[in-house]
Amino acid sequence: MLDDLWNSTYALLSDTEFWLAVVSTLVKVIVILVLARILLGVLKRVITQILQKREGKYVNVSEQRSKTLTSLLHSVVANVVYFIAILLVLDELGFNLASVLVGAGVLGLAIGFGAQNVVRDVITGFFILYEDQFSVGDYITTGQYTGTVIDFGLRVTKIQDWTGEVNIIPNGHIEDLKNYSKENSYAVVDMRVSYGHDLEKLQQLIMDASLVVYHSNENMIEKPDMLGIQEISESGAVIRVIALCKPVMQWGVEREIRRAILDSFAEKGIDVPYQQVTVHQKEA
Amino acid sequence: MLDDLWNSTYALLSDTEFWLAVVSTLVKVIVILVLARILLGVLKRVITQILQKREGKYVNVSEQRSKTLTSLLHSVVANVVYFIAILLVLDELGFNLASVLVGAGVLGLAIGFGAQNVVRDVITGFFILYEDQFSVGDYITTGQYTGTVIDFGLRVTKIQDWTGEVNIIPNGHIEDLKNYSKENSYAVVDMRVSYGHDLEKLQQLIMDASLVVYHSNENMIEKPDMLGIQEISESGAVIRVIALCKPVMQWGVEREIRRAILDSFAEKGIDVPYQQVTVHQKEA
Amino acid sequence: MLDDLWNSTYALLSDTEFWLAVVSTLVKVIVILVLARILLGVLKRVITQILQKREGKYVNVSEQRSKTLTSLLHSVVANVVYFIAILLVLDELGFNLASVLVGAGVLGLAIGFGAQNVVRDVITGFFILYEDQFSVGDYITTGQYTGTVIDFGLRVTKIQDWTGEVNIIPNGHIEDLKNYSKENSYAVVDMRVSYGHDLEKLQQLIMDASLVVYHSNENMIEKPDMLGIQEISESGAVIRVIALCKPVMQWGVEREIRRAILDSFAEKGIDVPYQQVTVHQKEA
Amino acid sequence: MLDDLWNSTYALLSDTEFWLAVVSTLVKVIVILVLARILLGVLKRVITQILQKREGKYVNVSEQRSKTLTSLLHSVVANVVYFIAILLVLDELGFNLASVLVGAGVLGLAIGFGAQNVVRDVITGFFILYEDQFSVGDYITTGQYTGTVIDFGLRVTKIQDWTGEVNIIPNGHIEDLKNYSKENSYAVVDMRVSYGHDLEKLQQLIMDASLVVYHSNENMIEKPDMLGIQEISESGAVIRVIALCKPVMQWGVEREIRRAILDSFAEKGIDVPYQQVTVHQKEA
Amino acid sequence: MLDDLWNSTYALLSDTEFWLAVVSTLVKVIVILVLARILLGVLKRVITQILQKREGKYVNVSEQRSKTLTSLLHSVVANVVYFIAILLVLDELGFNLASVLVGAGVLGLAIGFGAQNVVRDVITGFFILYEDQFSVGDYITTGQYTGTVIDFGLRVTKIQDWTGEVNIIPNGHIEDLKNYSKENSYAVVDMRVSYGHDLEKLQQLIMDASLVVYHSNENMIEKPDMLGIQEISESGAVIRVIALCKPVMQWGVEREIRRAILDSFAEKGIDVPYQQVTVHQKEA
Amino acid sequence: MLDDLWNSTYALLSDTEFWLAVVSTLVKVIVILVLARILLGVLKRVITQILQKREGKYVNVSEQRSKTLTSLLHSVVANVVYFIAILLVLDELGFNLASVLVGAGVLGLAIGFGAQNVVRDVITGFFILYEDQFSVGDYITTGQYTGTVIDFGLRVTKIQDWTGEVNIIPNGHIEDLKNYSKENSYAVVDMRVSYGHDLEKLQQLIMDASLVVYHSNENMIEKPDMLGIQEISESGAVIRVIALCKPVMQWGVEREIRRAILDSFAEKGIDVPYQQVTVHQKEA
Amino acid sequence: MLDDLWNSTYALLSDTEFWLAVVSTLVKVIVILVLARILLGVLKRVITQILQKREGKYVNVSEQRSKTLTSLLHSVVANVVYFIAILLVLDELGFNLASVLVGAGVLGLAIGFGAQNVVRDVITGFFILYEDQFSVGDYITTGQYTGTVIDFGLRVTKIQDWTGEVNIIPNGHIEDLKNYSKENSYAVVDMRVSYGHDLEKLQQLIMDASLVVYHSNENMIEKPDMLGIQEISESGAVIRVIALCKPVMQWGVEREIRRAILDSFAEKGIDVPYQQVTVHQKEA
Repeated sequence: MLDDLWNSTYALLSDTEFWLAVVSTLVKVIVILVLARILLGVLKRVITQILQKREGKYVNVSEQRSKTLTSLLHSVVANVVYFIAILLVLDELGFNLASVLVGAGVLGLAIGFGAQNVVRDVITGFFILYEDQFSVGDYITTGQYTGTVIDFGLRVTKIQDWTGEVNIIPNGHIEDLKNYSKENSYAVVDMRVSYGHDLEKLQQLIMDASLVVYHSNENMIEKPDMLGIQEISESGAVIRVIALCKPVMQWGVEREIRRAILDSFAEKGIDVPYQQVTVHQKEA
Repeated sequence: MLDDLWNSTYALLSDTEFWLAVVSTLVKVIVILVLARILLGVLKRVITQILQKREGKYVNVSEQRSKTLTSLLHSVVANVVYFIAILLVLDELGFNLASVLVGAGVLGLAIGFGAQNVVRDVITGFFILYEDQFSVGDYITTGQYTGTVIDFGLRVTKIQDWTGEVNIIPNGHIEDLKNYSKENSYAVVDMRVSYGHDLEKLQQLIMDASLVVYHSNENMIEKPDMLGIQEISESGAVIRVIALCKPVMQWGVEREIRRAILDSFAEKGIDVPYQQVTVHQKEA
Repeated sequence: MLDDLWNSTYALLSDTEFWLAVVSTLVKVIVILVLARILLGVLKRVITQILQKREGKYVNVSEQRSKTLTSLLHSVVANVVYFIAILLVLDELGFNLASVLVGAGVLGLAIGFGAQNVVRDVITGFFILYEDQFSVGDYITTGQYTGTVIDFGLRVTKIQDWTGEVNIIPNGHIEDLKNYSKENSYAVVDMRVSYGHDLEKLQQLIMDASLVVYHSNENMIEKPDMLGIQEISESGAVIRVIALCKPVMQWGVEREIRRAILDSFAEKGIDVPYQQVTVHQKEA
Repeated sequence: MLDDLWNSTYALLSDTEFWLAVVSTLVKVIVILVLARILLGVLKRVITQILQKREGKYVNVSEQRSKTLTSLLHSVVANVVYFIAILLVLDELGFNLASVLVGAGVLGLAIGFGAQNVVRDVITGFFILYEDQFSVGDYITTGQYTGTVIDFGLRVTKIQDWTGEVNIIPNGHIEDLKNYSKENSYAVVDMRVSYGHDLEKLQQLIMDASLVVYHSNENMIEKPDMLGIQEISESGAVIRVIALCKPVMQWGVEREIRRAILDSFAEKGIDVPYQQVTVHQKEA
Repeated sequence: MLDDLWNSTYALLSDTEFWLAVVSTLVKVIVILVLARILLGVLKRVITQILQKREGKYVNVSEQRSKTLTSLLHSVVANVVYFIAILLVLDELGFNLASVLVGAGVLGLAIGFGAQNVVRDVITGFFILYEDQFSVGDYITTGQYTGTVIDFGLRVTKIQDWTGEVNIIPNGHIEDLKNYSKENSYAVVDMRVSYGHDLEKLQQLIMDASLVVYHSNENMIEKPDMLGIQEISESGAVIRVIALCKPVMQWGVEREIRRAILDSFAEKGIDVPYQQVTVHQKEA
Repeated sequence: MLDDLWNSTYALLSDTEFWLAVVSTLVKVIVILVLARILLGVLKRVITQILQKREGKYVNVSEQRSKTLTSLLHSVVANVVYFIAILLVLDELGFNLASVLVGAGVLGLAIGFGAQNVVRDVITGFFILYEDQFSVGDYITTGQYTGTVIDFGLRVTKIQDWTGEVNIIPNGHIEDLKNYSKENSYAVVDMRVSYGHDLEKLQQLIMDASLVVYHSNENMIEKPDMLGIQEISESGAVIRVIALCKPVMQWGVEREIRRAILDSFAEKGIDVPYQQVTVHQKEA
Repeated sequence: MLDDLWNSTYALLSDTEFWLAVVSTLVKVIVILVLARILLGVLKRVITQILQKREGKYVNVSEQRSKTLTSLLHSVVANVVYFIAILLVLDELGFNLASVLVGAGVLGLAIGFGAQNVVRDVITGFFILYEDQFSVGDYITTGQYTGTVIDFGLRVTKIQDWTGEVNIIPNGHIEDLKNYSKENSYAVVDMRVSYGHDLEKLQQLIMDASLVVYHSNENMIEKPDMLGIQEISESGAVIRVIALCKPVMQWGVEREIRRAILDSFAEKGIDVPYQQVTVHQKEA
C-alpha cells in the first residue's frame, strides 16, 4: 500500500496538467494580492483627498480631528479589502468556502440581530464625531436627558445632570439633539400684571429693571428687548421681555431680571397678581 | 520538474482550444465594457432630459439646483454601471465571485441593518433638496422642533430655536414638516368679554383697535377680519379677529393687536374678565 | 501563436455543433422577444378594459383621470416585461447573470431598506389618485394636520393650514383621512343654561335664534334641528341645536348662531351661566 | 457557412436522441397541464363544499355573499395554479428561469416591502366581508373614527361622521371595531343629587320620569331599570337609570330621559346640584 | 421523422440502464410513501398520548375539547407530512422543483407579509382554546374592550359591551386578558368622611350597613371586611370596606352597600363631605 | 421488457462499483450515528456539570428545580442532535433534501412569523423558571397587572388581582417585573399639617402614634423611622414616617398608622388641614 | 455477491488515485488545524494587548475586571475558531454539510427570532460590565425603575426599590440609565413666599437656615448657594437654594433644609403662603 501511495505521488508530480494547475493558481493568487494592494492605495488616497477638501469647504474640521478620522477610515478600508482578498485566495487554493460561509452567515445573523444595536451605536458615534454635533463640555438635551457632556466614546456618551447625576446613553439613542453651547441664547421673562394698570408705564418699568441687569451682568450681551403683550389670560395680561445672553447663561440672567422687576414693582407699589376671581354672590 | 512545468506551459500555448477560450473571453470583456459605456451615455441623457422637462413643468427648480442635481445623479449612475460592469468582467476572467459576494453580502447585511438609518437620512435629504421643501433661512416645525433652518446637509439639518439653541436633526426624522416661510399667515387674536355687554359694540371696538395696527404696521398686509363669537365659555364670550400678515410676522402683529385692544378697553372702561364664578351662599 | 489562433477560429467556424448552438440561441432569443411583445399587448388590453369597466361601475373616474391612469399603468407594465425579456436574452447569450444579480440584489436590499419609504409614498399616492380620496382644494384632516390641499404629487401632498402655514406630508403618512369637502356638514352649537329656567321656553328661544340665521345665511341648507338636553353638567344644563350646512361652511354658521342666541338671551334678560358653586359656610 | 448550418440542422433532425428529448419534454408538459387541470378541479370543489358547509353551521352567510366569495376564491386559486404550471412548463422547455426568478424576486421584494400594506388591506377586507363584521349602513367605531359606513371596498372603507365629514380608512387599519347596529343598546343616564335628600323618593321620581319616556318613545323597547347609587362624589350622590333601546337610538332616548327628569325635579322643587363646597372661614 | 421517433422510443425501451433508473425511482417512491405513512402514525399516537397525559395533569381539559384538539392536530400533521412526501416524490420523478419553489416562495413571502396577521390570529385562537383562557359567556377585559364573550372563533372573538355594542376583535390582539368570571371578586366601597368625627364609631356604622346588605343579598358570599383608613385626602379621611361576591356580581353589591351607608348616615345625621376649603380672609 | 428489467438488475448486482458505493454509504451512516451518540453523551454531561456548578455558586437552585431543568435540557439537546443526524443519513442515502428543505423552509418561515410569539413566550418562561424570578404565590407587578401568581406555565402566567379577577399573561409579555414577596418592604405614611404648628412636637406625636402600631402589630419588624419634612405644599407641610414590614404587609400597616395618627391628632385637638386658600377681598 | 464486494474493495485499495485523494485530504485537514491554531494564538494576543492598552488610556478598568474580560473573550474566540475549523474539516472529509446547514439554519432562524432578546440581553450585559456603567450597590434609574442594584448577571439585573420591592430587569431593557452614585449631587430646595415681603431679607434668612444645616450635617460638602428667584407663580415668588452633597445623600439634606427654613420662618413670623386668590365681589 505504501508503495501505491508513493507511485501515485510520483505520477502526480510528473504530470504536466498538475503543474499547469499549480502555476495557474499561483498566478491568480499573486494577481489578487497585487490588485488588493493597488485598490487599497487608491482608496486611501481618495479618503485623504475627500477629507482635505471637506476641511476647507463644508465642515469645520480641526486638523486634529481630521487626522483621527483619516486613520480610522484607512484602517477600516484596509481590513475590508484584505478580508475579501483572503477569501478570494482561499477560494483559489481549493477550499470550499461556500458552506462555511453560509454556516457562519446564519450564526452571524443570529448574533447580528442581537448586536445590531452596537453597530448602530458606533455608526452614530462616528457621525457625531465627524459632524462635530457636540464636544465634551457642551450642555445638550437629547431625548429626556439634559446636562453637560462629560465623556464621549464611540459607543456611549455620558451626560451629567446639573444636579450631578451621571446619565449613560448609547450613541444610537442620540437621534435628535439640542445643543445649548453653540450659540448665544435669549433669556425670556414673562411678567403677569392685573388689568387696569397703564400698560405703557408697566412696560417701561419692566424695561428699566431689565436694563439695570444689563449694566451689571456681563452675561447679557445685548440690551433687552420689550416684546409686548404675550397673552391675555384669566389672571392678567402677560408682558414678555427678552435679552440675548452668552450660551448657557440665560437662566441666571432670567433670575436676576425677575428679581429686579419684583424689586421695582415693590418700590412703585404695583402688586403682582395672584389668581383673580370675580364672584357673583347669590343667596341660595 | 521544471522541465515538466515548461513542457506543460508550451503545450498549453500551442493548444487551439486554449486560444479559442482566450479570444472568446476577450471579446466578451470588450462587449461588456462597450455596452456599459453606451448604457451610461443613454442614462445620463435621460436624466438630463427629465430634469430639464421637470424644470419647466412641475417643480420650481432653480438653474443652480438643477445643475447640482444633474451632476449628483450622473455620478451615482456612473458608479452603479461601472460596478456591475467590473463584476461581469471579473466573472468572465474566471474569478469565482459567488462565494465572495455571499460572504460580503452577509457582512454587508450586518452593517446594513445598523447603517440603514444613514441611507434613509441621505435619501430623505435628497428629496428635501429635490422637492424644495425648505431652504436655509426658513422658519419650520418638524416633530418637536421649531425654528430657523441655519444649515442643511445631505444627512442632518440644523434648526435654531428662536431662543438661540441649535437643534441637530437627521434628515430621516424630518417626515412631516410645517413651513411658515412659504405663504402669508393669519394673526389670530381671541378676546374674552363678560356676558351682558352689547356684542355689536364690542366687536366694533375690537375691529377699530385692529385697524389702528393695520395702518401703523406694514407687516399686516390686509385689513383685519372680524370672525365673530368663537366660543361661549364659562368665563365669557370669546370674540375672534384675524389679520393676514407677512410670513413669520404674525406673532408680532398679534402682540400689537392685543395691546391696542387692551388700551381701547381701558379707555372705554370695559373690563377684561377674570375667572367668573356665581356663588350660591348656604349656611351649613 | 497567431497561426494557432487563426486555425482554432477557422476550426470553430467550420464546426457543425457551433452553428447548431448559434441557431438554437438565435431562435430562443427571437421566441423570447416575440412572446414578450405578445404578452405586453395582452396586458395592455386587459388594463384598458378593466379601467373602462370600473369607470362605469364602482368608481367615479373622470375621463381625464382614466387616461392618466391607463398610460401610467401601460408604461409600468412595459418596463417590467422588457426588463425580464432582456434578462432572459442575456442569459441565453451566455452571460452568467446569477452572481451579478446576487451582488446587485444585496446592494439593492441595502438601499431598499432605506428607500422603502419612497416606494410606499408613491404606492399610497397612486391609490389616493385612483380612489379619488381627495382633490386639490379639498379641506382635509390627516394625522395631526388639517387644512386645504394646495398641491398633490405622487410622493408628497401639501396642505395649507387655515392660518396660512404650508404642511408638507409624504403620501405614505396619509393613512386615514377625514375629508370635509365631500358632503354637507352639521353646525353644532351647545348652549349652557342654569337650572331653574323653563326648559321648553329656552329651547324655543334657541330654535328661534337659529331660524333667524337660517333665513339670512344661505350656507345653512336645512332648517335647524333642536336635539334637546345633551348634558347635565355641574355648571348647568347643555342644550344642543344642529343645522345642516354646505361643506366647510359649518364653522361660520356656528359663530352666527352663537351670536344670535346671545343677542336673544340678552334681549329676554336670560343670563348665560358662569361657573356655579354652592358654598356651605362654616365658622372654623 | 450556410451549408454548415444546413448540415448541422439536418444532422440534428435525424438524430434519435434529439427526438427522444423532444418526446420526453412533450410528455412532461402534457402531464403537467393535465395535473394542473385536475388539481384545479379538486380545489374548486373543496372550496365550494367548505363554503356550503359553513353556510349552514358557523357563519350566517347569505346566498348572495356565498356566491361572491365562491367565485372570488375560484379565480384566485385558478390564477395561482396556472402560474405555477406555466413556470414548470417553461422550465421543461429549457428556459433557465432561476436567474430571472431571482432577479424578479429581488425587484419584487423591494416593491413588496412598500406594497405589503396594500396586500394587508385586501386580506383584511376579505375577512370583513367573509365574517360579515359590518355592512354598509352600520354605525361603527374603529380606531379614532366613529360613524356610518357609507362605502365598503376591498381596500378602503368610508365612514361618515354624524356631523357629515367623510373618513377614508384603509381596511388594514380596521383591526378591532365596535358595531352599534348589531344589537339593542342601553341608554344610560347618570343623575347627580345633593346629599340630604330622601334617596328612595328621588329614585322613584327618576324612575317615573323614565317611564313617561318609555310610554311615549317607541325606540325604548323595555321598561327602564333603576340601578341605584353609582358613585358618591364630592358634588353629590349619582343615581343611574338604564333603558334598553333599538340600536343607535340610545342617545336620543338619553336626551329625552334627561329632559323628563329635569322637568320632574323642577316641578317638585328639587334642585340639581352645582359644584358643592364647604368653606371653613378663618380670619388671617 | 416519425420513423426516427419510433426507433428512438424502441431503443430507449430496450436499454438496460433506462429500466434500472425506472426501478430505482419506483423503489425510492415507495420507500418515501411508506416512511411518510409510518411517520404519520407515530406522530398521531404521540399527539394523542400527550393530550391524554395533559388531561390528567396540568390543564383542566374536558373530554369534548380534547377530541376537538386531537382531530385538529391530526389533520394539521397529516397535511404537512403528505405535502413534504409529495415534494419528495415529484423530485424523484425528475421534476425540477427548485426554481418553482423559489418562485412560489417569493410569491408566498409577499403574501405572507400581508397575511401573517391571519396566521397569528389563528395560532393565538388555538392557544386560547387549548389553555381554556375564556369561554363564551365569560365577562373579560382585553385591551380597551370589556364585555361578555358572545362568540369565539379561530380568527376573531366577539365581545358585547354591557351597554349592548358588539366588539369584534382579531384573536391576535388578545394578548393579555382579565377574566372576571373565573373567581369570586371583592366589592370595594371607599367612603369619604370629614375629619373631626369619631373614626371608631364611623367604621362601625359603615360595617353595620354593609352587614345589612350581606343578609339581604345572596351575591355577597362572605361577611364584609373593614380595611380601615385608606387615604388621608384634602377632602376628608377615606374608609374602605370590602366584601367577597360571586363573579361579576360585585358592582351591584357595591351599589347596594353605597345606598345602605348613605341611608345610615342620613339617619344618624352624619353629613357626607363635599369639597372642603379653609379660607383665610385678608382685606386687599 | 421484463427480461430487460431482470437483466439490468442482475448486471447491477454483479457490478463492483455498485457494492463499493453501498459499502461506503453504510460506513458513513454508521459513523454519523456513532458520532451523534458520542456528541449527545458529551453534551448531556456538560449540561449536568454546568447546572451542578451553578447550584453551588451563582443561583439559588433547589434540587427539585435542578432536576426539572436538567431533564428538560437533555431532551431538547437529544432532539436537535438526532434531527441533524437523520438529515445527514438521508442525505447519504441519496435523497435530495435541498429542495424539500427550501420548500419546508419557506412554509416554516411563513408560520414562523406568526408563531414567533409562542417561541418567545416559552423561552421567557424557561428563563423565569431558571432564574427563579417568581414562584406561585408571589405578589408581583408586571406591565399593567398587579396581583398574586396563581399559576405558572411555560407559555402563560396567571395573576389574580387582589379584588379577585384572573389575569392571563403570555410569558413573553413579562419583560420587567416587580416582586413584592422577595424582601421586606417599607410602609410609607405622608401626613399633611398646616403651617404655624410646632413641627418638632408634631413629628414627635406622629412618631409616638407609629410606635403604638409597632408594639401591637407584628407585621412591622423594625421601629418606625421619622424622615422629616418631605414637601412644602400649597396645603401645608408634609411629614413622612416609614416603617419596615414583612413582605406584602406594608399596606395594612400603613392603614393602621394612619388611623393611629388621626386618633392622636383628634385627642390633642390638632386639625388635619383641608385645602387652604388665602382670599384677598376686593370690591369690584 | 460477497466476492464482488471483496474484489471491489481490493481494487479500490490498490488504486493510485484513491490514495492520492486520501493524501490530499489528510494534508488539507492538517493545514486547516494548524492554521486555526495559529489564528487563535494571534487573536488571543491581540485581545490581551488591546485590553491592556485600554486599561491605561480610555477606560478605568481594574485589574480584576480586566482578567475576567480577557478570559471571557478568549473563550468566545476559541469557540468560534474551532467551530469554523471543524466545519472545514468535515467538508473536506466529504460530508455534504450544505443541506444540513440550510436545514439547521431555517430551524435556527425560527428559534433565533424568539431568542434574539436573550442574545441582546447578554450583549448589553457585556457592555455594562466592560464600560463599568454601574456596580452592585449603586443607586440607579433605568426606564421606570429606580433603586439600588442588588444583583448583576449577564442576562438580568435586580434593582431594589428604596421601599424594598425587588425589580428584575433584562439587561437588554437597560438602554439609558442615570447613575446617582458616581458623582456628588445637589440638594435643591424651592421655597415659595408671598409677594410684598423684602426679597433681600428673605433670601438671607433662607441662606442662614441652609448654613445651619451645612454646619451640622457632614453630607453637605460645600456651602449652600443662593440661586435667586426661580419662578413668579400665581401663589408667590419661588426662591431656590442649592447645596452640593455626597452621592445619594441629597434627599436627606433637602428635608433638613426644609425643616430649618420652616423653623426660621416660624421664629420670624413669616407665613408660608397657601394658595392665594384675589376675589372681586359683585352682587348678582
